[in-house]
Amino acid sequence: MLLDGKKIELGTCYYPEHWDRSLWRDDLLRMQEHGIRVIRVAEFSWNLFEPQEGVFSDDFWDEFLDLAAECGMQVIFCTPTATPPAWLTEKYPEVLNCDLYGHPVYHGMRKHHNMTSPVYLEFVRRVVEHIASHYSAHPAIIGWQIDNEVNCETTSYHAPSDHAAFRAYLKEKFGTLENLNRAMGTVFWNQTYTSWEEIHLSRNTLAKSSNPHMMLEERRFISEAAIRYIGLQAEILRQYKRPEQFITTNGLFGVLDNHKLTAEYLDFMTYDSYPNFAFGLDTAKLAPRSLRDRETSFNLAKTRSVSPRFGIMEQQSGPGGWNTRMVQPAPKPGQLRLWTFQSIAHGADFVSYFRWRTCTFGTETYWHGLLNYDNRPNRRTEELKRTYADIEKIQAVAGAKFCAQAAILCDYDSEWDGMEDKWHGPLRGQSMDGWFKALQRAHIPFDFVNLSDAGTSAPLESYQVAVYPHPTIMTEARAAQLKSFVEAGGTLVLGCRSGYKDIYGRCPMMPMPGLLAPLTGCTVEDFTFLGPADEAEYMVWGNDCIPAPMFNDVLHPDTPDCTVLAVYKGNYYDGMPALTHRRVGQGEVYAFGAVFAEETAAAFIDRLGLRSPVDWTLPEAVELTIRRQADGAQYAFLLNYTDQPQEIRVPQSVRSLLTGETVCGAGTMEPYGVLVLEIPET
Amino acid sequence: MLLDGKKIELGTCYYPEHWDRSLWRDDLLRMQEHGIRVIRVAEFSWNLFEPQEGVFSDDFWDEFLDLAAECGMQVIFCTPTATPPAWLTEKYPEVLNCDLYGHPVYHGMRKHHNMTSPVYLEFVRRVVEHIASHYSAHPAIIGWQIDNEVNCETTSYHAPSDHAAFRAYLKEKFGTLENLNRAMGTVFWNQTYTSWEEIHLSRNTLAKSSNPHMMLEERRFISEAAIRYIGLQAEILRQYKRPEQFITTNGLFGVLDNHKLTAEYLDFMTYDSYPNFAFGLDTAKLAPRSLRDRETSFNLAKTRSVSPRFGIMEQQSGPGGWNTRMVQPAPKPGQLRLWTFQSIAHGADFVSYFRWRTCTFGTETYWHGLLNYDNRPNRRTEELKRTYADIEKIQAVAGAKFCAQAAILCDYDSEWDGMEDKWHGPLRGQSMDGWFKALQRAHIPFDFVNLSDAGTSAPLESYQVAVYPHPTIMTEARAAQLKSFVEAGGTLVLGCRSGYKDIYGRCPMMPMPGLLAPLTGCTVEDFTFLGPADEAEYMVWGNDCIPAPMFNDVLHPDTPDCTVLAVYKGNYYDGMPALTHRRVGQGEVYAFGAVFAEETAAAFIDRLGLRSPVDWTLPEAVELTIRRQADGAQYAFLLNYTDQPQEIRVPQSVRSLLTGETVCGAGTMEPYGVLVLEIPET
Amino acid sequence: MLLDGKKIELGTCYYPEHWDRSLWRDDLLRMQEHGIRVIRVAEFSWNLFEPQEGVFSDDFWDEFLDLAAECGMQVIFCTPTATPPAWLTEKYPEVLNCDLYGHPVYHGMRKHHNMTSPVYLEFVRRVVEHIASHYSAHPAIIGWQIDNEVNCETTSYHAPSDHAAFRAYLKEKFGTLENLNRAMGTVFWNQTYTSWEEIHLSRNTLAKSSNPHMMLEERRFISEAAIRYIGLQAEILRQYKRPEQFITTNGLFGVLDNHKLTAEYLDFMTYDSYPNFAFGLDTAKLAPRSLRDRETSFNLAKTRSVSPRFGIMEQQSGPGGWNTRMVQPAPKPGQLRLWTFQSIAHGADFVSYFRWRTCTFGTETYWHGLLNYDNRPNRRTEELKRTYADIEKIQAVAGAKFCAQAAILCDYDSEWDGMEDKWHGPLRGQSMDGWFKALQRAHIPFDFVNLSDAGTSAPLESYQVAVYPHPTIMTEARAAQLKSFVEAGGTLVLGCRSGYKDIYGRCPMMPMPGLLAPLTGCTVEDFTFLGPADEAEYMVWGNDCIPAPMFNDVLHPDTPDCTVLAVYKGNYYDGMPALTHRRVGQGEVYAFGAVFAEETAAAFIDRLGLRSPVDWTLPEAVELTIRRQADGAQYAFLLNYTDQPQEIRVPQSVRSLLTGETVCGAGTMEPYGVLVLEIPET
Repeated sequence: MLLDGKKIELGTCYYPEHWDRSLWRDDLLRMQEHGIRVIRVAEFSWNLFEPQEGVFSDDFWDEFLDLAAECGMQVIFCTPTATPPAWLTEKYPEVLNCDLYGHPVYHGMRKHHNMTSPVYLEFVRRVVEHIASHYSAHPAIIGWQIDNEVNCETTSYHAPSDHAAFRAYLKEKFGTLENLNRAMGTVFWNQTYTSWEEIHLSRNTLAKSSNPHMMLEERRFISEAAIRYIGLQAEILRQYKRPEQFITTNGLFGVLDNHKLTAEYLDFMTYDSYPNFAFGLDTAKLAPRSLRDRETSFNLAKTRSVSPRFGIMEQQSGPGGWNTRMVQPAPKPGQLRLWTFQSIAHGADFVSYFRWRTCTFGTETYWHGLLNYDNRPNRRTEELKRTYADIEKIQAVAGAKFCAQAAILCDYDSEWDGMEDKWHGPLRGQSMDGWFKALQRAHIPFDFVNLSDAGTSAPLESYQVAVYPHPTIMTEARAAQLKSFVEAGGTLVLGCRSGYKDIYGRCPMMPMPGLLAPLTGCTVEDFTFLGPADEAEYMVWGNDCIPAPMFNDVLHPDTPDCTVLAVYKGNYYDGMPALTHRRVGQGEVYAFGAVFAEETAAAFIDRLGLRSPVDWTLPEAVELTIRRQADGAQYAFLLNYTDQPQEIRVPQSVRSLLTGETVCGAGTMEPYGVLVLEIPET
Repeated sequence: MLLDGKKIELGTCYYPEHWDRSLWRDDLLRMQEHGIRVIRVAEFSWNLFEPQEGVFSDDFWDEFLDLAAECGMQVIFCTPTATPPAWLTEKYPEVLNCDLYGHPVYHGMRKHHNMTSPVYLEFVRRVVEHIASHYSAHPAIIGWQIDNEVNCETTSYHAPSDHAAFRAYLKEKFGTLENLNRAMGTVFWNQTYTSWEEIHLSRNTLAKSSNPHMMLEERRFISEAAIRYIGLQAEILRQYKRPEQFITTNGLFGVLDNHKLTAEYLDFMTYDSYPNFAFGLDTAKLAPRSLRDRETSFNLAKTRSVSPRFGIMEQQSGPGGWNTRMVQPAPKPGQLRLWTFQSIAHGADFVSYFRWRTCTFGTETYWHGLLNYDNRPNRRTEELKRTYADIEKIQAVAGAKFCAQAAILCDYDSEWDGMEDKWHGPLRGQSMDGWFKALQRAHIPFDFVNLSDAGTSAPLESYQVAVYPHPTIMTEARAAQLKSFVEAGGTLVLGCRSGYKDIYGRCPMMPMPGLLAPLTGCTVEDFTFLGPADEAEYMVWGNDCIPAPMFNDVLHPDTPDCTVLAVYKGNYYDGMPALTHRRVGQGEVYAFGAVFAEETAAAFIDRLGLRSPVDWTLPEAVELTIRRQADGAQYAFLLNYTDQPQEIRVPQSVRSLLTGETVCGAGTMEPYGVLVLEIPET
Repeated sequence: MLLDGKKIELGTCYYPEHWDRSLWRDDLLRMQEHGIRVIRVAEFSWNLFEPQEGVFSDDFWDEFLDLAAECGMQVIFCTPTATPPAWLTEKYPEVLNCDLYGHPVYHGMRKHHNMTSPVYLEFVRRVVEHIASHYSAHPAIIGWQIDNEVNCETTSYHAPSDHAAFRAYLKEKFGTLENLNRAMGTVFWNQTYTSWEEIHLSRNTLAKSSNPHMMLEERRFISEAAIRYIGLQAEILRQYKRPEQFITTNGLFGVLDNHKLTAEYLDFMTYDSYPNFAFGLDTAKLAPRSLRDRETSFNLAKTRSVSPRFGIMEQQSGPGGWNTRMVQPAPKPGQLRLWTFQSIAHGADFVSYFRWRTCTFGTETYWHGLLNYDNRPNRRTEELKRTYADIEKIQAVAGAKFCAQAAILCDYDSEWDGMEDKWHGPLRGQSMDGWFKALQRAHIPFDFVNLSDAGTSAPLESYQVAVYPHPTIMTEARAAQLKSFVEAGGTLVLGCRSGYKDIYGRCPMMPMPGLLAPLTGCTVEDFTFLGPADEAEYMVWGNDCIPAPMFNDVLHPDTPDCTVLAVYKGNYYDGMPALTHRRVGQGEVYAFGAVFAEETAAAFIDRLGLRSPVDWTLPEAVELTIRRQADGAQYAFLLNYTDQPQEIRVPQSVRSLLTGETVCGAGTMEPYGVLVLEIPET
């Protein structure tokens, strides 16, 4: 069974409906030759199941699934709800999503439906029930994907049914208008609601500005609507599916609490990995960070936080792009293999390539698969063969857990509030980037840990250090969790703008960092954004002058045991506290008044004693990850993302799984090269 | 009484509805400690007055006003019409403003209403009448603010009622379609109207282009609608208010004839002064000029033109910004005091800080007041205390008039026409900037004087020099006023693109500068915009080569007494006249063929003999203004906008009001420092 | 008769409706003094013909035409359908065009109507029939212009009637939904249509993305709608007009098969030539190329392809620009004459200036004519007089044919598909630019030749070399035409991305370049866009390293006679084939794997032996064209686009038509200078 910890499997996304039936068998057999044992199908094929309203047909998929079974292929079968038929959206336009102005978004793309209209949900229910009941028994089917990339094309929903559902969501949550008005601060600018009918999702307003607390609730509502939409399908599938079949979907996309979704409805999450965005023609827009395809490791860590057991449903295998945008070059020779190992290095035991053969029509004519239009073998399919052979050599890694040295904390509340708030949102991205790069370059694997009132997505105690860059929204429950972590011996690092908002995004009348002040032992005395006319800001920490960019909290120690470690340098508050430290129980808390640049994060890593788990000499260009089996066996992955050879030094004898040889001392990694080394237990 | 010339008063904007009643008394008493004697309240509180349609309540404000009176506070009470309740806009959507496409702009921001719908005007009438009748007698209330920042959030109005009102406005103005068609040049592109029903405000068109003469009328209509909307409220207030109560509103915003508004309906205008925009994160967009916060003096001069007696209703006191935009750093230590004195230096005898305490919810969570969320004293409240003490030392200045050496002429017609016209609009901004900077750096205080067919906003004769950079739209009446000014001994300076349009924005079949040609004695022989491939353009004036940028009129002297002072250099019309001079009566006229760069304006200042009113040695970084009492006492303000000390030399004995000491000879101004010097009568 | 090959004529655009009748006679007589014998009138004057619905009037134009005849003026009379009256669009809003969202585009601009609504077409039919029947007999009228600049203001049509007409167009073209679905690849993303009612032109979609094959059909439909709209009028005119009257329209604009339009409905096409866009304030946006006004020669070559016999209906004669955009400086002294000769040099025997006198109102107040508002003679009218005198000296050129050495092939299908496709559209512009500049600088005149299944717009055999930069869409018929050309001795040069799409924009399952592979003898083995992280790419051709930018096809010779001429250098496919060569029949084919930079095109010119038709020494700054009479007389035009003198050397004795002198050896062309030299037959 997929992701059972016994085998790393390869798959591909296949669209039999795009090809002449005469190609099917050949395709499936050639897949097998390339090591592909799993295919995902049917996610955009509603019309094949239900060509007219209420008329169902199974000829197509029955025929295909039988052939798949015959060819020994395992199938992940999808619900086709991401692309409602034209007959449906034309007859029932209320199923369409709408933009902020209420303009419907029409047929011609995908995900143009909303997730709340009773009409759409009924159609979804009916088609999923039909599919679940008819196909579950098919032996080829090993699991189910619900819908496709929910919230990928948009996270903006404004259909009439969305407004109504939002109203119901708020009514359920707040009970009375009085509660709602208080929580949403509607007394400001006379926005008080006196009837539920006055309440809407964001609409067209002057300056595109809306009540920020309502905007936060709007995001919570969108996440909830998406979870319910997937949940509706998951519950139907669970009624009919065979026990050994899994349920998943593919992500990760915005304004969606993927942790809650996965916990409530999925067996595991899968990720769609397209590292080549880093090299696309509009890269500047899409990938602000500068580690290029290595940035995908950031997203894989996010996925691992959601679903420690996860697969890659779509792994890039060729040049990417729609006809109108996202134009990407061909992967360089070696990158397909490198990216496959990147996924595995981060914990994926299933890697399914997108797609088998490039579609010859439609919007994704340039989202190339393994094969080109001409169906001839090519250098990418040759590379896949080599990759497959290599993966067979590392099957011992299957099921091994990712080993992290540090945790970066995050929470949906602060993130979603920050989407609408220039005073903390942009800081978070910068600090995440600073920590990611610094940890990568120091070869320190890390995990993301999600925090909510219900607890953390992974046990915090297993980490020595936890960095929570800007926990803007803070609650009693979360402050207590952080306190427990520290008291039990953990080291917590906080950045500026912490704890100054409550769960609704309001600012309590407390000295900042609010509920975290009892933990840090200090409060914010003065603060400022750094404007365009300001000098660059630093803090003097010991003998070093370390960047303290973007925003500066001037800290004031309030308890005797809170000590000042560093002071500002550069602006009018020169010499005032920038960083404090306090021991609490067995642990310690650092409160930092600014944003973490990469250099800043590196300084913390150094001073906190965070070290790479291996004492090897690795260049900055090479990523290190480690996966550990329950039995203690450990596997180090080294990934060279550059087109240059890289020198490494491994001062111990370790076995290379790919070559079978023992590696010791200095060595050279080839361009885009990969090493998987079995290292002794620690 | 406020602005009675007897006392400079401090105030603040206070929102009792945002805070627990338990805080009110403490707030009011602490204000008093900080020198604050006046508060403005209620401008966004419609629901407190009328929680449901037709149901009025006065409990809230009665209670608060009684407490205010008890604490010795003087109150400016507002009409709450800037933010209609949700119950109103939901039930009567016709009261909403609409965008160009007709999409309503909805609840969630402020000023989302239109100013023409009979339904809205009736609701406004009713609530204002209730307020005026109920509260006028309250002893705490010293005056009234109508609405809030009219035309701030938008100057674009397209509700169905706006279209209808525009039609009525045109019918009243033009009487017949024939008149309208002729004035609007509708024969061009076959735009002739054959029925009033065919007439609309601008709507969605190809290339977002509309008849430019109709666009000019649209702006006149919008100004008129705003004046009528404020006038409706003013007339109700006048029926009920006590005689000693004043009526004002706060500005200045676009597409509004503030001169007419103030003359017809207000006792005086107040200005909202936010110098910190100059240091904001999106400063590049918001403040193209480079004198940063000193640019606010430009706006204060504009306000003074509208209302020689004026106050500051909102004076920035902390970091600024909404949650989504306009992010501004904290004012540097000293800037709060500096900006307060900047307002007073320009004539304001009332300065009211925005706001007492930063709101803890809503869109303006980051538009910080004097106090932060935590309500603790901070460095800004400490600075206010010092500022208050300083103001008490300069009370002798109260009521003194601003003294200007020169007038810059402007008119709404050319300005509004230029908003839609790339061939003169952008020139105006550049020339205004050039003159402002050159005059500032030469320490020559100036006034703006507004010109209309009815006359000028201040007597032109009191100025020796008047600069009218680009009076594109010219009428017989205005040409006559300019002629009188010159004949009586004034010096008039004109730039390019003068006088080539009539009152409807059409171009008369006359040699340019049209109606001004009899005054200048020259006409435009050739002309060109300077394109991207052209050389930089200069004029040779005596021995100097002076910028003549953007647009060049090649002038031709037509009368014997018109002499050529300078010729072009740089392009194909090298050697042709760029500047002419003519004596007319007791005065003289300069016609300049280009735009005024700062260096160009400086050359004119030098050659026209414009001099600073004091013979002091002042650095460019320091602004000088002078206020003079009716009894001849004069007070010079020196303002240092930089974070560096500035050296000055005052070669006469003058008394410093702030220190009480006598200043003479060289001295140093501290960073962000302020001096107020009593100087001998001139 | 105009364009009868006997005389080069001058004209102007005149708008008697804009001026007082008292000016008419003077205007017409002054035109005659300036050599103007032809005027175009009436294209925006529907209301003058039909002031109310169904009420016609001819007083205005009868009076004017009689006066024109009396003054000896020949008139091109227009149908006024580009600007429907306000009474029409207000009463029948279904005649308006709409934007993508369905918002109507309203009165206030021009071309705001759609071309499909039965109501509008009936109004058009009626007014054109009235005009044709009433005015055809008038002796002043020599020809007809239909509408004005069709598809100039927009090529986006989304009115309800457009959606319906598109549906009808597809039904007619595809017959069945099954055919349509297959051709449009609707199985992708489940876009299958199951009823004709589900079909629409593009509408609002997520990411503004629609089915690309439908988008191609949408462009074909828009072209067809425009042709039918003009055709409707042409057919009415043909019923009534005198035989000697011609029918034309003015262009060229986008998404319109001008070749088909001209062939089916017009006697010839006219072009609107505004070279001054090259010097406008927003030039960066409008003219990406760097030859400035010389780029207009590119458009004149396009016009010549559409209509070898053509005129200039609007030739720029002054500064240009609307009130809101396209601001252009005054033409430099000499440019009006230069641009007139540019048009003639490229084959135009009729040049009509836009416009006689600058309009004093409306959107085009700044689209200056020969005269300014003041109606005084000026330097431009003086220049026109000299130009007229010069043209009289070159009347021997009238009727001579343009002589080209090379053909650049193009087709509407690839161009329209490329508008929606980032993977080949942008390449075409770059390569066209590269070839245009390289040919210009080598002084090699060229023609554009349009290719379609029906054949080529000019006989290909008359060219030695044909360059078809990126024929993405390829059909059997076109491949056969290219093969014939080569077999008969032609040299064909192809760039990357050739032949990989079929007529619907789908990618056939063939090795690229698909249907062209049998001709090139090679196929594409690998390919990539060059991303931002890639090195600049070159090919090594002999001893030279030549740019091979943007996109790289790695070629693989499949036939023994296909030889590799050059290999790549710069990226991972270093050393692999970039350019192949093959002899086919009497000719040869070059397949090049990349885009043609200017330097690349220059290398091809050099190696292909393309040479200037004259062996003169000409600087890069000077353009050369040659026109040849049927009797063998040849005239060379030399045009200096710079403001600097240019040295030339003509090593043979030739007669200068403008001076009457014989030129031989070295000489100097004045800034913006023009030479017309009679050269010996070749």
